Amino acid sequence: MNNDNECEIRFLPEGKRSRVRGGSSIMAAALKGGVDLANICGGKGFCAKCLVEVIEGELSPVSEHEKKRVPPEKLSKGYRMACQARVSGNVVVRVPDQSRIGRQRLVIMGKEPPVRLRPNVLKVFCELSPPTLENPVADDINFLRALGAMERGADADVEVFRKLPKVLREGGWKVTATLVGGRIVNIQPGREEGAYGVAVDIGTTKLAVFIVDLSDGNIVFADGIMNPQIRFGEDVISRLQYASQGRAAQEEIRQTITNGINELISKGLAETEIKQEDLYEMVVVGNTAMHHLFVGVDVGSLGLSPYPAGLGRPYDFRARDLGIGINPSGSIHVLPNVAGFVGADAIADILAAKLHEKERLTLLMDVGTNTEVMLGNRDGIWSCSTASGPAFEGAHISCGMRAASGAIEKVKITEDGDVVSYKTIDDEKPRGICGSAIIDAVAEMLRSGVMNASGSILPDGHRRVRQGPSGREYVLAYKEETASGREDIVVTQNDVREVQKAKAAMFAGYATLMRKSGFHRNDLSEIIIAGAFGSYIDPESARTIGMIPEVPLDRISFIGNTAGSGARMCLKSLDAREDARRVSESIKYVELASDPIFEEEYVNAMYLPNSALDEFPEIVAGLKAPLVVKRYIRR
Amino acid sequence: MNNDNECEIRFLPEGKRSRVRGGSSIMAAALKGGVDLANICGGKGFCAKCLVEVIEGELSPVSEHEKKRVPPEKLSKGYRMACQARVSGNVVVRVPDQSRIGRQRLVIMGKEPPVRLRPNVLKVFCELSPPTLENPVADDINFLRALGAMERGADADVEVFRKLPKVLREGGWKVTATLVGGRIVNIQPGREEGAYGVAVDIGTTKLAVFIVDLSDGNIVFADGIMNPQIRFGEDVISRLQYASQGRAAQEEIRQTITNGINELISKGLAETEIKQEDLYEMVVVGNTAMHHLFVGVDVGSLGLSPYPAGLGRPYDFRARDLGIGINPSGSIHVLPNVAGFVGADAIADILAAKLHEKERLTLLMDVGTNTEVMLGNRDGIWSCSTASGPAFEGAHISCGMRAASGAIEKVKITEDGDVVSYKTIDDEKPRGICGSAIIDAVAEMLRSGVMNASGSILPDGHRRVRQGPSGREYVLAYKEETASGREDIVVTQNDVREVQKAKAAMFAGYATLMRKSGFHRNDLSEIIIAGAFGSYIDPESARTIGMIPEVPLDRISFIGNTAGSGARMCLKSLDAREDARRVSESIKYVELASDPIFEEEYVNAMYLPNSALDEFPEIVAGLKAPLVVKRYIRR
Repeated sequence: MNNDNECEIRFLPEGKRSRVRGGSSIMAAALKGGVDLANICGGKGFCAKCLVEVIEGELSPVSEHEKKRVPPEKLSKGYRMACQARVSGNVVVRVPDQSRIGRQRLVIMGKEPPVRLRPNVLKVFCELSPPTLENPVADDINFLRALGAMERGADADVEVFRKLPKVLREGGWKVTATLVGGRIVNIQPGREEGAYGVAVDIGTTKLAVFIVDLSDGNIVFADGIMNPQIRFGEDVISRLQYASQGRAAQEEIRQTITNGINELISKGLAETEIKQEDLYEMVVVGNTAMHHLFVGVDVGSLGLSPYPAGLGRPYDFRARDLGIGINPSGSIHVLPNVAGFVGADAIADILAAKLHEKERLTLLMDVGTNTEVMLGNRDGIWSCSTASGPAFEGAHISCGMRAASGAIEKVKITEDGDVVSYKTIDDEKPRGICGSAIIDAVAEMLRSGVMNASGSILPDGHRRVRQGPSGREYVLAYKEETASGREDIVVTQNDVREVQKAKAAMFAGYATLMRKSGFHRNDLSEIIIAGAFGSYIDPESARTIGMIPEVPLDRISFIGNTAGSGARMCLKSLDAREDARRVSESIKYVELASDPIFEEEYVNAMYLPNSALDEFPEIVAGLKAPLVVKRYIRR
Repeated sequence: MNNDNECEIRFLPEGKRSRVRGGSSIMAAALKGGVDLANICGGKGFCAKCLVEVIEGELSPVSEHEKKRVPPEKLSKGYRMACQARVSGNVVVRVPDQSRIGRQRLVIMGKEPPVRLRPNVLKVFCELSPPTLENPVADDINFLRALGAMERGADADVEVFRKLPKVLREGGWKVTATLVGGRIVNIQPGREEGAYGVAVDIGTTKLAVFIVDLSDGNIVFADGIMNPQIRFGEDVISRLQYASQGRAAQEEIRQTITNGINELISKGLAETEIKQEDLYEMVVVGNTAMHHLFVGVDVGSLGLSPYPAGLGRPYDFRARDLGIGINPSGSIHVLPNVAGFVGADAIADILAAKLHEKERLTLLMDVGTNTEVMLGNRDGIWSCSTASGPAFEGAHISCGMRAASGAIEKVKITEDGDVVSYKTIDDEKPRGICGSAIIDAVAEMLRSGVMNASGSILPDGHRRVRQGPSGREYVLAYKEETASGREDIVVTQNDVREVQKAKAAMFAGYATLMRKSGFHRNDLSEIIIAGAFGSYIDPESARTIGMIPEVPLDRISFIGNTAGSGARMCLKSLDAREDARRVSESIKYVELASDPIFEEEYVNAMYLPNSALDEFPEIVAGLKAPLVVKRYIRR
């Protein structure tokens, strides 16, 4: 094998070519060449979603990961995991449909800073002296003494005690006890090492499950599905309404998410050959509504002013009580919530973004239908939630669509406003506009003078502006270019209004926190955007429309879907869990509903970028249209 | 009403008459007159088992207890509860068959010393400030702060959290929290007072359930049934064998007792109109095997040397985990066990007998198929268990029977050994001999010289001694006197041997503890006999045959079935529970199996009363037969 040469990898059926150094993985080549190939676990070798069929060429020997994860019948047909198979010469592979991310991006991974491994699960090997006629010590006392747990009392699960006498004798008075948070949840004959945990991120849209080896912190399984509660409504409010019908409805919706989680866990156990018994703890994050629907907390009051959370503190429930398919005696840790609309997922974001450790003032936003806005540093954090709406997910936008194949995801408009270039997902013919592109489009329309600071599409001088059925509209793609070939893809005046409302809500959330906390805009050092959708936003466009405050581009970063990251951090480390608790207890929450400052900032943020022009000097300098704004001050 | 006169009460159909002062209850008259009338709750007015039909005469007005407990159709026909209805003149009543104890005595009550009421269940009324837009505090934090439980952390049941938001609002931010041992198990809107507990005594033969009002310590319901596990075997060993077949068998036998308990609880709830929700704690006693079968602890090793208990410590399990029909979030407290054959019931006996508070050395024996022997005082307690066998329950005795109608329960034999007088249960014609009478018979045969100290029925000079099919036998009742009229009721040589073995085991248990503890026989101040059967034993007969050591008759007492008493004490008082724990931790247990001292004492105790004649000076002085004994000393 020659690792120094350059190898050419050809991907069928599209025929894309990519050149990498010998020793690189096929995945590396796919990433370099922009090939659509699933990379769910980030190339760690456990999701086995990146299978490719080797048509021609030599590859590294089949790895242990592949022996475990790739079905034998596929291995024998020459299928390999792209992240495992390394090249030493030219290779031709075929990417089967199942290995395409294509259709809909289901991003479940986010940035995850390393933590010191300090799980809540402890395995202790004990050697006991057998009872004698002279000293017929009871089995439990014998065991607890060996464990050194006699003094502090035995908080053990009934199932442990039920099998205790049998296990002690089966193991020849050598056993392994497993403790979760000091509670004895298992006893096994002999010496047993396996201890795994589950991190769960219950998003309103997506459900992600990760199995983590608690001995080294490695993810050994990760998978996501659409949140099966979607059948009760796509958004949080409609699910709360369904659940509020009564106990049975709430139980039905709880069972639905529980079943979804259990399905993913079962799949993970089957793939990894881990025993259910050895899954000892699960850490769950989600927004407050998802959290409550999962635990089964009555949500009748969650959507009602003053929007308090039902549960604010972190809790440890028992797997058996929640019907979760890990060890029935194991624990389910739910992270704390801050308020009805700032939940455990926001706490997870903070951990993953390390907001609570930042020296300088940092803005963290988790962009979604509700955008959680967190502003602060190690000295304290302010938070609020703002209803940014589903515009950025393509809803309420005339040609909007989710981020799927054929969605326009990037837009550029020339200085004169007449020539549009765009990029679609999977490079297919355009079928609509997804969230990142609608932000681009509005920013570009503003920059090129197609639209003024009030967000009005200007009537004259632009070829692509025309009168549509409900006001003026701007054509992004003429029907001839589109997948359907039947209709132009446009941005309507109404679409612009939707974007204005969404971005105004977000910015006003930030601005309200700035004013309440007494910080000055010059204090702001950094912006971090979380959320699956956020990863695709062009930071310059976001800044241009005033969705985020103006900081240098290199101080804007994207960390992806970090709710799951925070859950994994808390699963691996009691320190992270302690951080989560401390953050939740000290975080200052601002309820924006009927807050006059928010109202004022919202109205001003309807301007593009804002009526406070001095807050956006660089943007303002780059705009073509006349900047006519009116500052609104609430009496 | 005239309370000073004397009234005559006539009981039909037997026509027995009893005279009592005006104002006395019919029950008082029945007890005085020896009328067979059920008195299960001890006249407290909650069992409603003592219904009588009033034929003639005036009685006190129908009481509240009667309005609650006596079915209206019976009340209208003139049925009254004998313990409630008080007389002011002559009365004639009929005792229906259902109100007879007759058939089999199912004694569930025992002596119960008063305890300071300090239950583990606490109800706390809380008033909360509702959340506001300025302070939208989470419901759980709001609640825990009001409860003062924020600091110590919230060990609350998931069901409490599930309904928390709803209950807070239903109660207008005024709620009642219920804590069991500091764990929050319920939350109710407004102010709620009801808190009840259940005490359960799982005997090998009988199952007794008591519902106790934790606000005043009163028993509000008591009932007993045969232990439904009897279908898996009458004795402990056969049930252990059944359960040892495997997980399914053990689960089956566990379910059986659980169902039995739940049935009695349901009955109690229906009769008292208490809500299941308000039953917050249950305290369970039983011997170690019954305890383990109830919890579901593997019993595969319980019958095997060196006979350690599986669980020795007290535990609090959750009702939901054990499937017990109290509040599912409530607690099940199981008292500690000492060893495989000295269980939680022995600890309960100690509490009820106050053995752990005695100043002087006291012997406590719980007489049954296994007799638990406890010897000690407030400075320490020694214990052992001895296989006294079922002879005293009428088994292995040629004409033996359980204590039911027609059983001879008392026997006297004249000095010459020729005339027998006896008493039967319900004064029916004799059908057999029950335990108390077999002890009487052996004692009387010894006293009258029909038998020698070796237990051999002597061949000559006694009219009632004859050669039977398997050795000599003594006729207690000739067939003409019996219920069947077909066969004589006799005590055979073999019956005497069975009694010798049983009493030798019991005495040897005591004697072994005396020798191990280093006490002298003069130290022994008092003997207390517990156990349902024990109540009927004639203490003089027991002393005569050497079943118990020789102490003055006025220092021998009977406390009945005290396992349930101990359970109720621990339900009502954490102090009693603490006593139980301390006793179980400090009690010295002696395993008699293959103990040489026990073997020696056993052989010597086969003599009547014993080969150590100096231990029984008074008995020996009263005997007619030549006392030829041989002291056995093990080499």
